[in-house]
Amino acid sequence: MTSERPSTGFLTDQYEFTMIDAAIHAGTADRDSVFELFGRRLPSGRRYGVVAGVGRALELLRDFRFGEAELEHLRAHSIVSPETLDWLANYRFSGTIRGYREGEIYFPGSPILEVRSSFAEGVILETLLLSIFNYDCAVASAAARMVSVARGRPLAEMGSRRTGERSAVAAARAAYIAGFKATSNLEAGRSWGVPTMGTAAHSFTLLHDSEREAFASQVATLGAGTTLLVDTYDVREGVRLAVEVAGRELGGVRLDSGDLPTLVAEVRAQLDELGNTETSITVTNDLDEFAIAGLGASPVDSFGVGTSVVTGSGAVASGMVYKLVARRGEDGDWASVAKRSAGKASVGGEKFPVRRRDEHGVAEAEVVGIGAPPVSDKSDRPLLVDLVVDGVINEEFTGEAGVQRAREHHRTAIDELPIGALRLHAGEAALPTVFVEQDGRETVWV
Amino acid sequence: MTSERPSTGFLTDQYEFTMIDAAIHAGTADRDSVFELFGRRLPSGRRYGVVAGVGRALELLRDFRFGEAELEHLRAHSIVSPETLDWLANYRFSGTIRGYREGEIYFPGSPILEVRSSFAEGVILETLLLSIFNYDCAVASAAARMVSVARGRPLAEMGSRRTGERSAVAAARAAYIAGFKATSNLEAGRSWGVPTMGTAAHSFTLLHDSEREAFASQVATLGAGTTLLVDTYDVREGVRLAVEVAGRELGGVRLDSGDLPTLVAEVRAQLDELGNTETSITVTNDLDEFAIAGLGASPVDSFGVGTSVVTGSGAVASGMVYKLVARRGEDGDWASVAKRSAGKASVGGEKFPVRRRDEHGVAEAEVVGIGAPPVSDKSDRPLLVDLVVDGVINEEFTGEAGVQRAREHHRTAIDELPIGALRLHAGEAALPTVFVEQDGRETVWV
Repeated sequence: MTSERPSTGFLTDQYEFTMIDAAIHAGTADRDSVFELFGRRLPSGRRYGVVAGVGRALELLRDFRFGEAELEHLRAHSIVSPETLDWLANYRFSGTIRGYREGEIYFPGSPILEVRSSFAEGVILETLLLSIFNYDCAVASAAARMVSVARGRPLAEMGSRRTGERSAVAAARAAYIAGFKATSNLEAGRSWGVPTMGTAAHSFTLLHDSEREAFASQVATLGAGTTLLVDTYDVREGVRLAVEVAGRELGGVRLDSGDLPTLVAEVRAQLDELGNTETSITVTNDLDEFAIAGLGASPVDSFGVGTSVVTGSGAVASGMVYKLVARRGEDGDWASVAKRSAGKASVGGEKFPVRRRDEHGVAEAEVVGIGAPPVSDKSDRPLLVDLVVDGVINEEFTGEAGVQRAREHHRTAIDELPIGALRLHAGEAALPTVFVEQDGRETVWV
Repeated sequence: MTSERPSTGFLTDQYEFTMIDAAIHAGTADRDSVFELFGRRLPSGRRYGVVAGVGRALELLRDFRFGEAELEHLRAHSIVSPETLDWLANYRFSGTIRGYREGEIYFPGSPILEVRSSFAEGVILETLLLSIFNYDCAVASAAARMVSVARGRPLAEMGSRRTGERSAVAAARAAYIAGFKATSNLEAGRSWGVPTMGTAAHSFTLLHDSEREAFASQVATLGAGTTLLVDTYDVREGVRLAVEVAGRELGGVRLDSGDLPTLVAEVRAQLDELGNTETSITVTNDLDEFAIAGLGASPVDSFGVGTSVVTGSGAVASGMVYKLVARRGEDGDWASVAKRSAGKASVGGEKFPVRRRDEHGVAEAEVVGIGAPPVSDKSDRPLLVDLVVDGVINEEFTGEAGVQRAREHHRTAIDELPIGALRLHAGEAALPTVFVEQDGRETVWV
């Protein structure tokens, strides 16, 4: 099976190959290196971000290799030299990756992934890791806010059509990790065990000679407990007809258009008058976290969210970067490295991040030890776990089980945040990120 | 080979399957239907949109089928009934798809795809087609504006890390169709023949014990004609060192940070003083169409664009929808259908779109005949071509050749637009979209 899965080795940028080529010739390709993946800031005044993509990254890493097809392409286009082709033919990541757990909360500067390997083995993963984390974290970070404001009412992700067809699967997975209850995306159900849902679209009603026939045909196949879409023509008439066709057992009605707060109240009143007090109301019309919050007092039973969640609600790329932070020099000694480009500073050195909590268990700071774990009498929760050790993937975080674990961990991590972290309006990160040098000197990330 | 490619049949929403299930039981699944894919409006005050994704859609349609793995999942989760499983097992799209050519310009209401088939065969493609067109058109539409304002200077797409790892490949392809010259993405090079490029990142410089060693190692392997990244430490010193190491033959320098208009002018002056008048300057720092326009008078030789192009420059989903517009009723007669949900009107009936041009060959309107081609004494260019005929894919539009053809067609279609269409600032669509009924009645899309 494994050998039949397509290589993921070309989901990268060409410059990674030319860098390796040059480094192999210069004798620097094997230098022990530490790369770090992190976000410089949270997008759009968010208070926190959510880590997602870890399990996907591990699966894609498993298939990150170069077969004859890849090598032939590189050879035919003279992208690298023969020595480098040989090196690529034997490529298997043999280093160690530690990182934040999937579902974890992160803040600006949080060292989300730390890749320790030779320069060449680590640099070649740059683009693929960033693609995964930039997208998956964007979706999970948006989804988590929607879950907060829905206050226990279930959310379904149904935005597959608003993002690339493979990103759609990743989005469904990330939203589920962040607390969504289900997705419309079948592949996410099959690949990752995300619960799937869905009944009918407007086209189904339009297919039939009347709305009544459409409802009757849906109820005949899916049962009276199904959800009927009642806004193809006139909502009031649609609701009346839905109840007439499905009876008291009608599971739910879905509203996909209109002025929702008003409409929802009217539909609830109508259903109750008709005696369908148990029939639920699902709304699905261009919702985002603000619209969901605006429906806080409305009798909505569940939400379907599309565009806004799969596009990160205005921040579709999380702004993650992947930087070399330390490497051994010619002398064999480790050196922290950091470029000094304007506005793009990174903090050199190996990191030991912890979430510091007060006596009530409420998170109060992201503390990142540089070169050693921070010393404290507080309750510090270490944030890095082993994802890959000497090339061996930690299967605890892969597959469907990894997704469930991530979803549970997310709940725990969210519950630890101070209440202000859940505010929707733009502001500062909920926790300061504090870097602590081995000599005790502290620097707050700004 | 074909049988080994994975199925794309699950890159869909579950409700397509439940609708088919209900329609099979109601006897309506086989009704002849016409679905249409279109955008209700252009995002963010754009003047025009660019069609992309056609060739990808055809390739994914080729693999759209349900094997034992898919059927077993549907069975195990009781998503559809046994009759529907049988229908899915035999699914091959046997209908006809006409559409705008890839690379074509579109406007609000332009019927970009028209799918004629049974209801069930057509409805099941909804999500996959929308995922492809919503994303690919977003990228191509943003890319085309960047190409316009770059006024002949080449652009490279290098945003793979800012979008999902598979969307990255689609983005590189779409940007190329819209006139970009190259991409950093290797898979786009292999799968679609997009020219690839790239040399080195900051990490390569940081790997080495000095910037000089890094430059020397890159030049040793890639030749003096390479492009050196000169802003890891101090730009002025970086440029001096680059010229010292590579000499007069230095191909280019790349700037990835800083205040570009000022910096570019300084670097150009420095290079000229050093005698490197032929060494080019590439800039790659968070560029979008506005930043590129702002560098109009700067001595920049080429642009590398990342985040903004792969995220559609603020409009990452194009707002395309897929609607049933006509179907045969129980009586066997065709009926135009359209739902009346608030703010979501669609125009029923089969469409015959043309681009109407004045006597100078300049486009002046998008005219869409409903039920018949529009009659006119103007030069009307028909916009629909056959993409799939009775289930057979038109291979003219697939593969690498399809990409080249799309890129060429885009150039032609852009050149036909009135000059105002190329304005960057927000406004109305460059052409009105006019629907013409068979009785001559005209309706302008608003």
